[in-house]
Amino acid sequence: MSGSAGRVLLLSGPNLNLLGEREPEIYGTTSLADHVEAASKVAEKLGLSLDHLQTNDEGAMVEAVHSARSTYDAVVINPGALGHTSWSLHDALAAFEGVVVELHLSNPAAREPFRHTSVVASVSDGLVAGFGGLGYQLAVEAAGRLLAGER
Amino acid sequence: MSGSAGRVLLLSGPNLNLLGEREPEIYGTTSLADHVEAASKVAEKLGLSLDHLQTNDEGAMVEAVHSARSTYDAVVINPGALGHTSWSLHDALAAFEGVVVELHLSNPAAREPFRHTSVVASVSDGLVAGFGGLGYQLAVEAAGRLLAGER
Amino acid sequence: MSGSAGRVLLLSGPNLNLLGEREPEIYGTTSLADHVEAASKVAEKLGLSLDHLQTNDEGAMVEAVHSARSTYDAVVINPGALGHTSWSLHDALAAFEGVVVELHLSNPAAREPFRHTSVVASVSDGLVAGFGGLGYQLAVEAAGRLLAGER
Amino acid sequence: MSGSAGRVLLLSGPNLNLLGEREPEIYGTTSLADHVEAASKVAEKLGLSLDHLQTNDEGAMVEAVHSARSTYDAVVINPGALGHTSWSLHDALAAFEGVVVELHLSNPAAREPFRHTSVVASVSDGLVAGFGGLGYQLAVEAAGRLLAGER
Amino acid sequence: MSGSAGRVLLLSGPNLNLLGEREPEIYGTTSLADHVEAASKVAEKLGLSLDHLQTNDEGAMVEAVHSARSTYDAVVINPGALGHTSWSLHDALAAFEGVVVELHLSNPAAREPFRHTSVVASVSDGLVAGFGGLGYQLAVEAAGRLLAGER
Amino acid sequence: MSGSAGRVLLLSGPNLNLLGEREPEIYGTTSLADHVEAASKVAEKLGLSLDHLQTNDEGAMVEAVHSARSTYDAVVINPGALGHTSWSLHDALAAFEGVVVELHLSNPAAREPFRHTSVVASVSDGLVAGFGGLGYQLAVEAAGRLLAGER
Amino acid sequence: MSGSAGRVLLLSGPNLNLLGEREPEIYGTTSLADHVEAASKVAEKLGLSLDHLQTNDEGAMVEAVHSARSTYDAVVINPGALGHTSWSLHDALAAFEGVVVELHLSNPAAREPFRHTSVVASVSDGLVAGFGGLGYQLAVEAAGRLLAGER
Amino acid sequence: MSGSAGRVLLLSGPNLNLLGEREPEIYGTTSLADHVEAASKVAEKLGLSLDHLQTNDEGAMVEAVHSARSTYDAVVINPGALGHTSWSLHDALAAFEGVVVELHLSNPAAREPFRHTSVVASVSDGLVAGFGGLGYQLAVEAAGRLLAGER
Amino acid sequence: MSGSAGRVLLLSGPNLNLLGEREPEIYGTTSLADHVEAASKVAEKLGLSLDHLQTNDEGAMVEAVHSARSTYDAVVINPGALGHTSWSLHDALAAFEGVVVELHLSNPAAREPFRHTSVVASVSDGLVAGFGGLGYQLAVEAAGRLLAGER
Amino acid sequence: MSGSAGRVLLLSGPNLNLLGEREPEIYGTTSLADHVEAASKVAEKLGLSLDHLQTNDEGAMVEAVHSARSTYDAVVINPGALGHTSWSLHDALAAFEGVVVELHLSNPAAREPFRHTSVVASVSDGLVAGFGGLGYQLAVEAAGRLLAGER
Amino acid sequence: MSGSAGRVLLLSGPNLNLLGEREPEIYGTTSLADHVEAASKVAEKLGLSLDHLQTNDEGAMVEAVHSARSTYDAVVINPGALGHTSWSLHDALAAFEGVVVELHLSNPAAREPFRHTSVVASVSDGLVAGFGGLGYQLAVEAAGRLLAGER
Amino acid sequence: MSGSAGRVLLLSGPNLNLLGEREPEIYGTTSLADHVEAASKVAEKLGLSLDHLQTNDEGAMVEAVHSARSTYDAVVINPGALGHTSWSLHDALAAFEGVVVELHLSNPAAREPFRHTSVVASVSDGLVAGFGGLGYQLAVEAAGRLLAGER
Repeated sequence: MSGSAGRVLLLSGPNLNLLGEREPEIYGTTSLADHVEAASKVAEKLGLSLDHLQTNDEGAMVEAVHSARSTYDAVVINPGALGHTSWSLHDALAAFEGVVVELHLSNPAAREPFRHTSVVASVSDGLVAGFGGLGYQLAVEAAGRLLAGER
Repeated sequence: MSGSAGRVLLLSGPNLNLLGEREPEIYGTTSLADHVEAASKVAEKLGLSLDHLQTNDEGAMVEAVHSARSTYDAVVINPGALGHTSWSLHDALAAFEGVVVELHLSNPAAREPFRHTSVVASVSDGLVAGFGGLGYQLAVEAAGRLLAGER
Repeated sequence: MSGSAGRVLLLSGPNLNLLGEREPEIYGTTSLADHVEAASKVAEKLGLSLDHLQTNDEGAMVEAVHSARSTYDAVVINPGALGHTSWSLHDALAAFEGVVVELHLSNPAAREPFRHTSVVASVSDGLVAGFGGLGYQLAVEAAGRLLAGER
Repeated sequence: MSGSAGRVLLLSGPNLNLLGEREPEIYGTTSLADHVEAASKVAEKLGLSLDHLQTNDEGAMVEAVHSARSTYDAVVINPGALGHTSWSLHDALAAFEGVVVELHLSNPAAREPFRHTSVVASVSDGLVAGFGGLGYQLAVEAAGRLLAGER
Repeated sequence: MSGSAGRVLLLSGPNLNLLGEREPEIYGTTSLADHVEAASKVAEKLGLSLDHLQTNDEGAMVEAVHSARSTYDAVVINPGALGHTSWSLHDALAAFEGVVVELHLSNPAAREPFRHTSVVASVSDGLVAGFGGLGYQLAVEAAGRLLAGER
Repeated sequence: MSGSAGRVLLLSGPNLNLLGEREPEIYGTTSLADHVEAASKVAEKLGLSLDHLQTNDEGAMVEAVHSARSTYDAVVINPGALGHTSWSLHDALAAFEGVVVELHLSNPAAREPFRHTSVVASVSDGLVAGFGGLGYQLAVEAAGRLLAGER
Repeated sequence: MSGSAGRVLLLSGPNLNLLGEREPEIYGTTSLADHVEAASKVAEKLGLSLDHLQTNDEGAMVEAVHSARSTYDAVVINPGALGHTSWSLHDALAAFEGVVVELHLSNPAAREPFRHTSVVASVSDGLVAGFGGLGYQLAVEAAGRLLAGER
Repeated sequence: MSGSAGRVLLLSGPNLNLLGEREPEIYGTTSLADHVEAASKVAEKLGLSLDHLQTNDEGAMVEAVHSARSTYDAVVINPGALGHTSWSLHDALAAFEGVVVELHLSNPAAREPFRHTSVVASVSDGLVAGFGGLGYQLAVEAAGRLLAGER
Repeated sequence: MSGSAGRVLLLSGPNLNLLGEREPEIYGTTSLADHVEAASKVAEKLGLSLDHLQTNDEGAMVEAVHSARSTYDAVVINPGALGHTSWSLHDALAAFEGVVVELHLSNPAAREPFRHTSVVASVSDGLVAGFGGLGYQLAVEAAGRLLAGER
Repeated sequence: MSGSAGRVLLLSGPNLNLLGEREPEIYGTTSLADHVEAASKVAEKLGLSLDHLQTNDEGAMVEAVHSARSTYDAVVINPGALGHTSWSLHDALAAFEGVVVELHLSNPAAREPFRHTSVVASVSDGLVAGFGGLGYQLAVEAAGRLLAGER
Repeated sequence: MSGSAGRVLLLSGPNLNLLGEREPEIYGTTSLADHVEAASKVAEKLGLSLDHLQTNDEGAMVEAVHSARSTYDAVVINPGALGHTSWSLHDALAAFEGVVVELHLSNPAAREPFRHTSVVASVSDGLVAGFGGLGYQLAVEAAGRLLAGER
Repeated sequence: MSGSAGRVLLLSGPNLNLLGEREPEIYGTTSLADHVEAASKVAEKLGLSLDHLQTNDEGAMVEAVHSARSTYDAVVINPGALGHTSWSLHDALAAFEGVVVELHLSNPAAREPFRHTSVVASVSDGLVAGFGGLGYQLAVEAAGRLLAGER
């Protein structure tokens, strides 16, 4: 790990670019950029550096995790629907040796059955779900504190 | 809701009194009292009042939720193994109108199959899991911010 | 059986003490006490004695059935959520030799899947479900007429 | 609804014409006509008119429900084995806007697995099961009281 | 049983009127009338009377079994596709106290999964399947010999 | 096939006679007669003859398909709930050698699980679903164009 | 096939040597030798040669089928419990090009679930089940008539 | 919606670029370009504008749906194999507020089991399947008529 | 472990207080006290101390296991119906570091399906089942010999 | 039963000849001969005669049970992996009228899922599992005491 | 096929670029380039030309198979996690008419359940799994010998 | 391991003695002896000794693996149908400490569902399937190279 409190990569998967527009009764009306900005402030307070990437493409997501291997201490990942089926993403995260925090805006366990399966859970340190965009802040805080050795 | 930032009831279910003794490779070595104390500090910082109850008895857990109906604004609940089977607890939480945050020390989705079912998820606002005792602090923070209207 | 028309124990399980408050769109707005009183009038008309017990505790429910073995001719039981999982309750009822009537306010078969399983059905004489609090009266009437030898 | 206490159609499905002959250890020795007559007396006491139809034919059952749409306030239906498989009957009852009471002589939940599925439950107001022919009286009484606005 | 060797009702269910026309690679090219005639000769040789009924209607099939209760000693039934789903037919046969032989032209266990379930098996004395139209003769012979007390 | 563009039999199953009355939020407010009339115009434009039959009876449906064998070039069938369970209907259609188009007003795959199974799909050429009554026109057009050799 | 009416190998699997002793309420009181003798008479009448082998050993059963390949025209096989699990037996029968008739004394479809699966059905021409020892005669007759080209 | 009859985006998923080459016994011998051209003529007749995109990439498909949000009134989508597994595509379509028509060349319900699940059905207005390339024309016609307010 | 041969806690779960009264055809006619006394004699012979607790309450059972952690070397547990569903009991036993022997009067694997699942097996050293009350003696003997280091 | 305390046949199935060599972390390091010798001493103390047979062959195991029918009063059987699949063994034991005790070295319910199914349980009097080789002694003692009429 | 011994395309799916770095206890420490080089030598010895492509993207993998249609005689494919879920890849391979060999470094059947499903198996000629990087050489050899007509 | 390159036991299970005769469209027309001879040449080239055994008997197969424990360095096993059900074989292979290679002529994953389960996979080092008799050579080569330390 670097001398600083840690470098965090925040990943957002398919359809999250629509946040604030798509199904607001489930996902709220704030945009992804707003959530990322709020999370950045949390990161800053904890002395973390934070980068964000949103992609709708499984291959791009996998490769983002690959390159995180040498340049980040933690990955906070909101995999969107890929979190229910992408074993490629699972395999990529299994090869990442830092902290992994899984993040969902809604609580998958309380929605349709296909959302009850997480292929990411078994390769994550922890999970934050159901708090809407607020979860971005909570997940980054969780990652930072895990990096700081708390548990 | 009261004039203050909110009253939070923190509930810990069966076997959590053994924390720090039981299976430390999964649950760590800190005691429940330590986790509750750390969570109390978070509550204080957010202007929340916090009470804690641990019980190994389903009936007592159900009744704790019942009496929370008039005296608390939020329930943060670590249901232990009851969270996988107790529909009575589910029904009790369904009748609580405040904020509900589900909390697990380990990530159930990454353990034995019987821990993959949550009867509490569908009546919770959000979920914090897998962060060990640190989760007590994160869950109380999450509850407090939901009470403050963030999302 | 006693010389009278029979002694009936009416048992109400977890969360039924909230009747009239909890999810009124499903369970109505009348309280449990009101339903019991109406059932008492039915009992009286049929010459039955009627006692009522509500408990949120599985152990207490099991023991109530045990002690009914020598003192009651029939048990009318609204097991609440325990009716879906408590094999202990099933075993206790199997050891009761009088009449058993299972009672549900809503129709479990028309709700969530976990409510489709009844561990009580195989040890009950009959079932009354879906009539709301009115079911209390119908179930007591059914028990009384079974005790009177009708079928 | 008509000015009277209500018009009730009592429907009996396949094989119920054999009542009193078929498997008396399960279904008793009284004939269907006897049960209907006893139910008629209950109806009379409650000021209800009561008509009865028995058919072994799914199509005839469906059409009986169709024509009940304009001429009856309630349907009490003992669907026999059709209650486990006939989605046509389910669809017909879904289109009936009055009171629907499902009736079974035995308790399906306590018999063979194929009898645990009811395609009628989700379109019924309530269920009476397991009381043998006595159920005819209880179900008609239940229908009458629902029509009278009790619940 | 009558003084003669026995009266047998041979029942053929839905689509069997198409025999000899429908899917000849599965069912052969002989007509139903031909098969029945061959079966009649077997019956005659065994001193049995034989009547045949084909119907495409579940209700008619059920009622044919009902009326067989007083007038036949055995039912040989090729239920067609009704044999996989009609619990009404199952219930009707359960109420028939004579000999029941289940007959299929093809071997259901060797075809599509939906044909692997027989709702008739548990209320039949024996089963003849897979021999094409020849099965009509074998099933009648089997029924006759069971009536004669062989086993 | 006849010299004309083809003879089409349009079949509507159980409960479709209620169209325009039953659950209008799902099935719309137009009557079956209206839909058939609109479909007739489509048929006319394509040079097809069109007959329509509605029945609530499985046996009648099966026999309608049987007699279509010699007199129609195509069957357009909206089997209603029979499409989910009637293997007799499946067997009847398997014996029909012309074009078969399956039609549903709503999209079964988007409704209750019991509607996800089609016993008709494997013996149909194509499927039109989810377009409400408009589907009657689209399905007849599809049948006509298949008869014309398009694909 | 040989010039005669055919050579038949009759195979009896595990535990059938106990016939007449084991669970007589299910399997009757006649011995296997008696059943084979009765079957031999049927064979003789049809001009068939008949050999019989009983074994409790899967390997021996498989090899009996192998050697039947060059020396028998038909195999009548009562596989006993091997018929529910032995895919080796299935593969052996698949390699036998003559007639195969599957035989069970009781009707497997009417007994415990593990007996509902037949690994032999898909490689048999026909099935005779549920007729007790009489089935030996019926199965040999069936095999003989299939060899004679009837169907 | 625009002043014109509507703008339609026609999407074709993985492997559809091989149409006319791949497995012609299932998919026919006409190319995708031919089918699109035929569909364009239908669109023109109905006054619709039509654009077409084929992609083998899930991410590209998701983004095509995203950008359709502001520029098209309807999406006609032949998702290919993505329609059985891509919940990302489901989520993208859920966020599109115009008309959605699901299209398959073959009838998925009549093929391998993995094709029986549609993740698109619950977010589509209607479904056209099994008509080969002709389905392109029927689906565009259906979309146009839905846009015109027919149903 | 103490200097003596060991301290054993014998736990009996719900409904076992009815032993000798409840369903004697399954559980025999001897009382629980008799079985415990016989087990005490076995313990004495092996130099073990033995305490017994019966409870119908899951919470009490869990807490009995908790307090056994410091005061007993072995737990012999007949969990009754809790053994099929109580993951809380499983978690409690997982935290007990001494010897655990699971005991059932009847053989669960030979009874109803719900009794085939043991949540206790994975945290027990061994299992004694099906020997009626005699099992109490065998299980204590087994525990004693395991404590003595035999295996 | 003979005048003596009883004759016991101890059967060990496939791979048990490797005991002490195979996977010692599961099965310990003592040989089968050692375990049998220890069991013999238990038998002697109880006045039982004891014979032992180990076989890797299902057919030989079945036949050993057959010949036990006339010469032994009890069978103690460690079926090895045959206990999970051999219905032939189940059928053989069902025909044995003496005492049957099932024995496993490890606790199958705590291992891989395929070991959770016992085809022997339903035909055994009791089960001893999980005690390693010590189980041989416990199972023989259990058999002896059952033969002595204890329960 | 070309005049040479054949052109082989070797495809490696998601995460295989990490070989030698990721989870070395499962996948070994040699890099993908090393394995490909070793496979090239095998190809050379067999007179095959060999090209290799690694991609983390499903769409790119599908398109690589498409273009192989005209330029390669065989595809050796290590699909990585895509092999468990990508029906698009299945469809693409189904359209490739040359030899297909499926390759896995580890043996999927011996790992987590999600790896037990192969969507590629039904469109492959053969499978090589579990030999680590050595599998690359074996699979290429297998492909070459199949191209040479061996089998 | 011996000083030489290694001793390999090649095992062929039930029905493989029929190779070249049985179902040639699946298994080809070459005999088992031919395949073994070709494999022997591969062995020779790699400096391996090779013995071959074919048996149709599970017990014999188990014992062959047992005796391989001291005399062979590797087992190459084509278990035939035993590979889908024989846990005894699984247990025997688990006790063999050398190299194990599983071999199938056809690709089980691409055939009937019962062939999708391998009880041998979890105790094998690698798998070669689908290459017909050529697989014998590839599997022996694979075993040899694993013995040589390649991977």
